Amino acid sequence: MITLRHYRQELELTHTFRLARGASDVRQTLVLELEEEGLTGLGEAAPIDRYDQDCASAARAAEAMAQHLTSPLAYDSAASSVAVPGEVAAEAAMDMAVCDLAGKKLGVPLYELMGIDPRQAPVTSFTIGMDTPEVVEAKVREAGEYEVLKIKMGSDEDRQILEAVRGVTDRPLRVDANEGWTLEGAQSRLEWLESMGVELVEQPLPAGQLEEMRELRRLSPLPLFADESVYRAADIPRLAGAFDGINIKLMKCGGLGEARRMIAVARAHGMQVMLGCMVESSLAITAAAHLSPLVDFADLDGNLLIDNDPFVGVTVKGGRLVLPGGPGLGVRPRADPPEKP
Amino acid sequence: MITLRHYRQELELTHTFRLARGASDVRQTLVLELEEEGLTGLGEAAPIDRYDQDCASAARAAEAMAQHLTSPLAYDSAASSVAVPGEVAAEAAMDMAVCDLAGKKLGVPLYELMGIDPRQAPVTSFTIGMDTPEVVEAKVREAGEYEVLKIKMGSDEDRQILEAVRGVTDRPLRVDANEGWTLEGAQSRLEWLESMGVELVEQPLPAGQLEEMRELRRLSPLPLFADESVYRAADIPRLAGAFDGINIKLMKCGGLGEARRMIAVARAHGMQVMLGCMVESSLAITAAAHLSPLVDFADLDGNLLIDNDPFVGVTVKGGRLVLPGGPGLGVRPRADPPEKP
Repeated sequence: MITLRHYRQELELTHTFRLARGASDVRQTLVLELEEEGLTGLGEAAPIDRYDQDCASAARAAEAMAQHLTSPLAYDSAASSVAVPGEVAAEAAMDMAVCDLAGKKLGVPLYELMGIDPRQAPVTSFTIGMDTPEVVEAKVREAGEYEVLKIKMGSDEDRQILEAVRGVTDRPLRVDANEGWTLEGAQSRLEWLESMGVELVEQPLPAGQLEEMRELRRLSPLPLFADESVYRAADIPRLAGAFDGINIKLMKCGGLGEARRMIAVARAHGMQVMLGCMVESSLAITAAAHLSPLVDFADLDGNLLIDNDPFVGVTVKGGRLVLPGGPGLGVRPRADPPEKP
Repeated sequence: MITLRHYRQELELTHTFRLARGASDVRQTLVLELEEEGLTGLGEAAPIDRYDQDCASAARAAEAMAQHLTSPLAYDSAASSVAVPGEVAAEAAMDMAVCDLAGKKLGVPLYELMGIDPRQAPVTSFTIGMDTPEVVEAKVREAGEYEVLKIKMGSDEDRQILEAVRGVTDRPLRVDANEGWTLEGAQSRLEWLESMGVELVEQPLPAGQLEEMRELRRLSPLPLFADESVYRAADIPRLAGAFDGINIKLMKCGGLGEARRMIAVARAHGMQVMLGCMVESSLAITAAAHLSPLVDFADLDGNLLIDNDPFVGVTVKGGRLVLPGGPGLGVRPRADPPEKP
């Protein structure tokens, strides 16, 4: 008998999060506790407002899914086979909880269950949100041991922001344009970004502009990655030729099983793979990190951007992701929540 | 410390195997025994003559691979990361052995390790090799509980063979043309096959004729599956539009990890998936069977076509594949080899 509990947690952002689409100081995520025979599988949903999800709708979806769950041992498709349409963050949370439970039942870390070599985990980037050049400079200094920085763009101040970053660091940079550019302006921006030591750019144009993306890709000196243009594996074939790579996020695709399938499809099309995240605690970030040895680029820093992370899991050493060795996700509640600065 | 032993086994075919490309009475396969800490992982290579593989070349490749193997727990890519180019059957055997060893180390069946629900295993078809109409009739009567028959075609006697089969059974039929047709003759054959209750046709045209396949698919009343046209996941994108599905074989793709990736890529392209085999003992057949819950059609009968199967593993009940519950592949040597008839 499988039972489900869930609760909301409020994640406090270290810096007000400015994006092309808005700003915020806190994020709510939904934690799932899936219990069977004395073991508890943990999952976390970071609902995406853009897709009409919130913690309440995710909780309703999780409850509906739990009623139809059969054995968590069939972890590859247990959650997706009972998913509620549109509630992809809840599906991802349930998938994580199922994977965590399966690993705990068998007493092995999730990466081992999936046959993945944890020593292949890549470096992860640290995101610098959009802000005034002064604040961006301060954030870069905070980025500490992270070897790669990701810069959010999409405003009129793009050049000043990047110049501010380059003024204080020579680390490799990745740029996320969050659909903020136009085809006309993008080419010269890309050439300038290349001259500034940027290694790739995410989602320069709005998600629907695939024909424009094909044209831009032909002109671009930098690899271009899809983010808002890609959700699940079935989206990838039509992106071949328009993007050089894809950004996979558990909250967009519904979980670890679908994420692995997306990696396979991207590879078959000769595309590179980045593993990204939303603002999430170490619970969901660690789930994604278990797949990170399979990808080229990791951008798993959602837990680093908050002050009150309730969980402990994946860590970063020398910029590289270090997977926890405990059974399942290897995530545990933080014993001593850090004090707010 | 991982050590490798290997030996050849001679599989005696119940019926002389007639194909468009030749005939034979026995097949040699290579068995691998991968030992670590008192546990033994088993694998089997059925080398493919067409690709210049034989047991000797497979054995050399397996020895070379074993020298570079690291932890079998990273089973998803342990074998493929040390593969010898061109020796795909050896790669598949090593992959099976690694998966078997990983399952045995963790004490769980391979399907459970991979998170696959064994209750979803499909029916499997029973192959009727090309022969005279009289022998084909006798073979159909031998097919017993198998709910679906697969008929090998590609000769001038195709019509007589199919009519002989239909004369003794009304079971669903699948046809494997083994590249034996031409675009000109294929359309009328397909229409006739549909009228005879055939549900799908494999590889009607030679592997390289993709443009002709696109044309044939537009005209075909039956789903068309790629076999000789597809090896690995990276082959699949260019087959979309030319075939409705693919036939995955471990000996063509190099193992269970790549087979899973192929399933993901085929699904992303809206293609169906069949899991096939060569003439193999229950060792390699069982390895493939662990993935069968993920596919639409199983054609895993290589072990049913031989008289002296040295292994026991997957069984068939009511036409459906039943996965063994033991750790790893769940395959063991046959205690009492069946007497030859």
